[in-house]
Amino acid sequence: VTPYTPGEQPQRRDIIKLNTNENPYPPAPGVLALLKNMDGNLFRKYPDPDATVLVSAIAEFYGVDKNQIFCGVGSDDVLGMSFLTFFNGSKPVLFPDITYSFYDVWAGLFGIPFETPALDSGFHIRKEDYFRENGGIVIANPNAPTGVAMPLSDIREIAEKNRESVIIIDEAYVDFGGETALPLVSEFKNLLVVRTFSKSRSMAGMRIGFAIGDENLISALKRVKYSYNSYTLNMPSILLGAESVKDRKYFEETVGKIVKTRERVKHELREMGFVFGDSMTNFLFVKKPGTDAGKLFRALKDAGIYVRYFDKPVLRDYLRITIGTDEEMNRLLDFFRHAFSGGV
Amino acid sequence: VTPYTPGEQPQRRDIIKLNTNENPYPPAPGVLALLKNMDGNLFRKYPDPDATVLVSAIAEFYGVDKNQIFCGVGSDDVLGMSFLTFFNGSKPVLFPDITYSFYDVWAGLFGIPFETPALDSGFHIRKEDYFRENGGIVIANPNAPTGVAMPLSDIREIAEKNRESVIIIDEAYVDFGGETALPLVSEFKNLLVVRTFSKSRSMAGMRIGFAIGDENLISALKRVKYSYNSYTLNMPSILLGAESVKDRKYFEETVGKIVKTRERVKHELREMGFVFGDSMTNFLFVKKPGTDAGKLFRALKDAGIYVRYFDKPVLRDYLRITIGTDEEMNRLLDFFRHAFSGGV
Repeated sequence: VTPYTPGEQPQRRDIIKLNTNENPYPPAPGVLALLKNMDGNLFRKYPDPDATVLVSAIAEFYGVDKNQIFCGVGSDDVLGMSFLTFFNGSKPVLFPDITYSFYDVWAGLFGIPFETPALDSGFHIRKEDYFRENGGIVIANPNAPTGVAMPLSDIREIAEKNRESVIIIDEAYVDFGGETALPLVSEFKNLLVVRTFSKSRSMAGMRIGFAIGDENLISALKRVKYSYNSYTLNMPSILLGAESVKDRKYFEETVGKIVKTRERVKHELREMGFVFGDSMTNFLFVKKPGTDAGKLFRALKDAGIYVRYFDKPVLRDYLRITIGTDEEMNRLLDFFRHAFSGGV
Repeated sequence: VTPYTPGEQPQRRDIIKLNTNENPYPPAPGVLALLKNMDGNLFRKYPDPDATVLVSAIAEFYGVDKNQIFCGVGSDDVLGMSFLTFFNGSKPVLFPDITYSFYDVWAGLFGIPFETPALDSGFHIRKEDYFRENGGIVIANPNAPTGVAMPLSDIREIAEKNRESVIIIDEAYVDFGGETALPLVSEFKNLLVVRTFSKSRSMAGMRIGFAIGDENLISALKRVKYSYNSYTLNMPSILLGAESVKDRKYFEETVGKIVKTRERVKHELREMGFVFGDSMTNFLFVKKPGTDAGKLFRALKDAGIYVRYFDKPVLRDYLRITIGTDEEMNRLLDFFRHAFSGGV
């Protein structure tokens, strides 16, 4: 098994960190207040294995039943456990050739056969590639690292043509402008929507992810979870996660700010000659024809601006740039202006 | 797969909770102080995937190298991942018939063949049962739920006779009086010692466990971890866990108090006619000949005193009772005195 390589976590504080799609804004004020008042004496006891207060808060936010929700240690835990739970046949699981690069790692870890239909030249997922026999389907929507979103009507068509296998829609970035597949969950009992607190909720450091689906899918996940680790989410994650979900206003404001910054940066990068798809996420996946992306990546790093670079076929012409604050993005844009006027 | 059944986590505050081997004392004062000063703004970023500050603190405490340490979400995560990493041959993994009841669950989850040699009538592990071909060995020392410890010389003999397979010594309870196998780790490159913060460090609610072994074993575990979830320990676990390890004095004091209470309770229970092995843990596994343990379990529960009862052959004559504070144990002893004088 070749492990997944996460983005760097530099310890220097002066770095502009646009490399792991973290949210530039802090968690909701209620989260910070609860942290200050948290009773550490309680840590001597095990946490609630069902994470009830967190599950209840999520159920209320999304208007679903509590037994339609499964929580894990980040969406990676939820996705990894879903691979282990649902993908154990001999037919190949399908996911795009360019997508979240953990999918093939989990398949490798658990010995799951898989095939990876190619994106089209505009980085779109071709729905027709998923209209054939398979052992499961995984679609990141919007997709990573491209940022390109798939319309809900395409997801619906894929679901209609695949009643027999489990379909996972990884919506890590959906809050920034994609169309969620949550409305399909009651109709398609085999469709699981996976979400994370790491991006739109500014809580990557707390490791919280969840899945919403039919209660039969959720109870299958729970059986596997309780066969691996009874207590996965620790007390602070459960309590602070629930508090985060309660503040819809802050959540919407924060997401709104990031979307606004993103659209401005898109405009400015286009003016500079960058080319990219219409990202619906908190990152952009950009190339500048005639520019060596690897060189640009290293020059940015030397200047204290970390972005993500994938040294792989197709991807190696691109940089993946997280949307930070306006100030951070201005520093990035200034760097580019300077570089392209002959400064690098 | 039949999941493991954890002990109940009642929400009522007035319960005397002696059912999940939690520590009755709070985490170290430094942990509580750091919690109050923790900067929740940092939660927007991913945690350090290597949990460096925690690993460094553990390395210093035990005098081992940092690359000899693997951390996980409780020792369950560390053990489960060890099963997945090391036990994938066709030969059976060996562990006792009466032991931590998660071992056969993990074996079932990952399709690992296993055999379970029987304890002797005094609940001792018979070392000779492990002198034969196998795909791995798992020994909880002291054992659960019996509390009985195995001498280090027996562990050494098992290690000497098994150079080819990975030997896991699960030392969840060793701080309360067992002999650790840590001195064997440098000599036996195939021996892994697994520990938890949930018992002797009063941090069950934080979910921290770790393994110490040869760096090749540790790097194999890391490869699997990074193929499942890059970021398992969240920021509070890493920071508060490290803080806990730094306070050796509080740790030793707390453990000392529990051992003292345990020895007193042993004496009093013996006087009442209870029979049990010489527990070296923070719990006792007791029976009272002529008394229905299941009935006693339910009567205790009705009185607000939760202990653990396993309704299985051999075990169903016993209660597993966690050592709480002196006050809590007095309430338990009073209940027994009352019950056995005809009160129940």
